[in-house]
Amino acid sequence: MHPDTLMDGVGSPLRGLERFYQGRRVLVTGGLGFIGSNLVHALVRRGADVTVMDALIPQHGGDEYNVADVRSRIRVEIADVSDSDALKPLVEGQEFIFHLAGQMSHGDSMRNPELDLGVNCLATLRLVEVCRHCNPSAILLNTSTRQVYGKPQRLPVDEDHPTVPVDVNGINKLAAEYYHLLYHRVYDVRSVVLRLTNTYGPRQQISNDRQGMAGVFLYRALKGLPLRLYGGGDQLRDFNYVDDVVNALLLAAASPGCYGKVFNLGADRAYSLVQYSRILGELCGAETEIVPFPSDRKLIDIGDYYGTYQRFRYVTGWQPQYDLADGLKASVDFFSREREHYVV
Amino acid sequence: MHPDTLMDGVGSPLRGLERFYQGRRVLVTGGLGFIGSNLVHALVRRGADVTVMDALIPQHGGDEYNVADVRSRIRVEIADVSDSDALKPLVEGQEFIFHLAGQMSHGDSMRNPELDLGVNCLATLRLVEVCRHCNPSAILLNTSTRQVYGKPQRLPVDEDHPTVPVDVNGINKLAAEYYHLLYHRVYDVRSVVLRLTNTYGPRQQISNDRQGMAGVFLYRALKGLPLRLYGGGDQLRDFNYVDDVVNALLLAAASPGCYGKVFNLGADRAYSLVQYSRILGELCGAETEIVPFPSDRKLIDIGDYYGTYQRFRYVTGWQPQYDLADGLKASVDFFSREREHYVV
Repeated sequence: MHPDTLMDGVGSPLRGLERFYQGRRVLVTGGLGFIGSNLVHALVRRGADVTVMDALIPQHGGDEYNVADVRSRIRVEIADVSDSDALKPLVEGQEFIFHLAGQMSHGDSMRNPELDLGVNCLATLRLVEVCRHCNPSAILLNTSTRQVYGKPQRLPVDEDHPTVPVDVNGINKLAAEYYHLLYHRVYDVRSVVLRLTNTYGPRQQISNDRQGMAGVFLYRALKGLPLRLYGGGDQLRDFNYVDDVVNALLLAAASPGCYGKVFNLGADRAYSLVQYSRILGELCGAETEIVPFPSDRKLIDIGDYYGTYQRFRYVTGWQPQYDLADGLKASVDFFSREREHYVV
Repeated sequence: MHPDTLMDGVGSPLRGLERFYQGRRVLVTGGLGFIGSNLVHALVRRGADVTVMDALIPQHGGDEYNVADVRSRIRVEIADVSDSDALKPLVEGQEFIFHLAGQMSHGDSMRNPELDLGVNCLATLRLVEVCRHCNPSAILLNTSTRQVYGKPQRLPVDEDHPTVPVDVNGINKLAAEYYHLLYHRVYDVRSVVLRLTNTYGPRQQISNDRQGMAGVFLYRALKGLPLRLYGGGDQLRDFNYVDDVVNALLLAAASPGCYGKVFNLGADRAYSLVQYSRILGELCGAETEIVPFPSDRKLIDIGDYYGTYQRFRYVTGWQPQYDLADGLKASVDFFSREREHYVV
C-alpha cells in the first residue's frame, strides 16, 4: 500500500493534494530529520519548490542521507531556527513553512532542560516573530506532541484534555504551541498545530531511543535482538506510520479551517507494547522479553495513552491509511533495503 | 486595619505565622520589587534571616528605596536569577525561596517576547535546576498570574479552568509553573505555585502601566488627573491588597498541603473598573473619563475576570482581610506620605 495509490480512492481528501503543492514555495525546518525528510520527499513528488533548513544537531535525527535521492531538486541550508539572521532570508517569500526542527527526546529534555528550551521554545518564538515581521502571509504548520497532555486523565485523549506535561519536553512544546496560536490570534499569522503521537517508519533515527520506543524496537528487531518491554508491556499506545503523518501535515496546511487550531493525530486502534513487539517480532523473527522499569523512565512514564483524531478528521477528512501491521511491514522493508545506513 | 492586628483574631491561620519564620533563612528573588519588598518587610518583622536577589532590570519595578527602612537587617545581592553562577551561592542553605523576580507587563511581553521568555521562563528553569542540585530540601514559592487563563470561559475562574494565555507573558509564566510542578513530581522539590490577580498597594511601581491598571489609576488619582477607562469600564476584575498577598505567600510556603499544587488568589467580590475608579476617585478627588479601546490593548484584553480562591482557603484558611475601599485607602495614605519618591 503506497500512499500514491491510496490517493486515487474516490472522495479521498488526499486526492486534492496531488496538485496543490505544485510550484509552491515551501520551507521545511528539520527537513533532514525523520518526519521532515519524508515530508520533503512528498513535496518533491508533488512538484513543490522546497527549501530545507536543518541544524544537524547531533542526536536530533537530522541526516543528509535522508534526502540524498532528491538532493538535486531541493535547496538545503544548514542553520539553526534560533539563528534569526539565518532564518529571515529563508522565511521570506515562502508560501508554506513546516516547522519540524526540534528536540523530541523526553529523557534528554530532563538531562539538559535548557537545551530543550532553546531548541523547542526559543527557536519557535523566533520563528513566529520572523514570520510576523518578514512574511505574515505564510502558512505555518507546527508539529507538537501528545506529550503535552502528560498522563491521561481520560481515554481516548481529545484536544480539550488538560495539559499536564510530565517532562521538560512537554512543557516547552506546549509553550511553542501557545506562541503559534497567539500569533494567529493577535497578528493573523496562519498557523496550525498538530499533536503527533508515536510515529514510526522510514528514515527514523532508530539506533537510539531519542525518537521513541517504536524506533528502538525496529532497530532491535532488525538486528535480531530481543525486544525489551518495561514493566510488563501492557501499556497501550497509538501508532502512526510516517506517510500518514506526512499526509496529515500536507492536508492541515492546505486547509484554512485548520488555521489557528490544535489537532491530535492518532490511530483507529490502540495496541499494547506487547502486541506491538509481537507483530514486529514476527516480521523479523525477534523475541520479546520483559524487564523491570528503569527508575528514570518510571518517573516520566504516562501509563496508557491513545488519542482521538476525530476533530482533525471532521475538518480535513484525514484518516490513517496504514494499520500497524502494514506500516511495520513497510518500515522493515525500507530498513532492510537501507540496512547499511540506518541499522549500524 | 494593619495586618499585625488582624493576626490576633482567634483562630486566624495567620496567627501561627507570627513565629514561624523567626530565624528562618529566606531568599526573596525580586525582593526590591513591589510585592517582593512588601514580603521582605513582613519577613523582617517576623525575625527571618532575609537575603534579597534582584537584578534591578529597568521597568521591572525593583527599587532599593523599597527596602531602605530595613536595609541594615537584610542582605541584598544585585544579580539576575538567570545567572546560575550568582544564583547558586544564594540558594545554598536557604530554607525558603520566594521567587518574585520577573517581568509582568503584558504589553512589554508582546513588544519584546524574547526578553519575557528569558526573565520568566529561562530564569525559572535555572532556579529549579539550581534548587534541585544545590538545595533540594528548600521550599519554593513561585508567583504566577491569572493571565495564564486568558479570556475566561466561565466565572469565577477556578484552577481547573483551561489555560489559554492571550499574551506572551501568560505563556511564559505558564511554562514557569509547569517547571515548578514537574520538579516537585520528579525530584521532590517542594514547590507551590500561586496565581495572583490584580495586586495593588504600597511600593507598587505606579508611574507607568507595567504593573497593571490598578497602579496606573492610583498614580493618576494621586496626581489629580482624570482616570481613563477603556471601552466603557464595565469589565469586572478582582483586586488584592498587597498585604493580603504577602500573607498568602507566607502561609503557602509554610503549608505542606500546598506543595506541588497550584492555587488562585482572589477576592470576595469583583468590581467593575468604573466602580474601582469611583472608589479611588472619591478618596483623591479625581474624575473618571471613558476613552476608546486602544487597538493594541484590545487584542490582548480578556474581558471580565474574577477568580475563586476557595481551594487555597480550604488548604490554608487564607482569606483576604482588606476590602477594596480599605486597601485603596491604605494605599493612598502610603503614597501620600511617600509622594516624593513614588508619585513623580
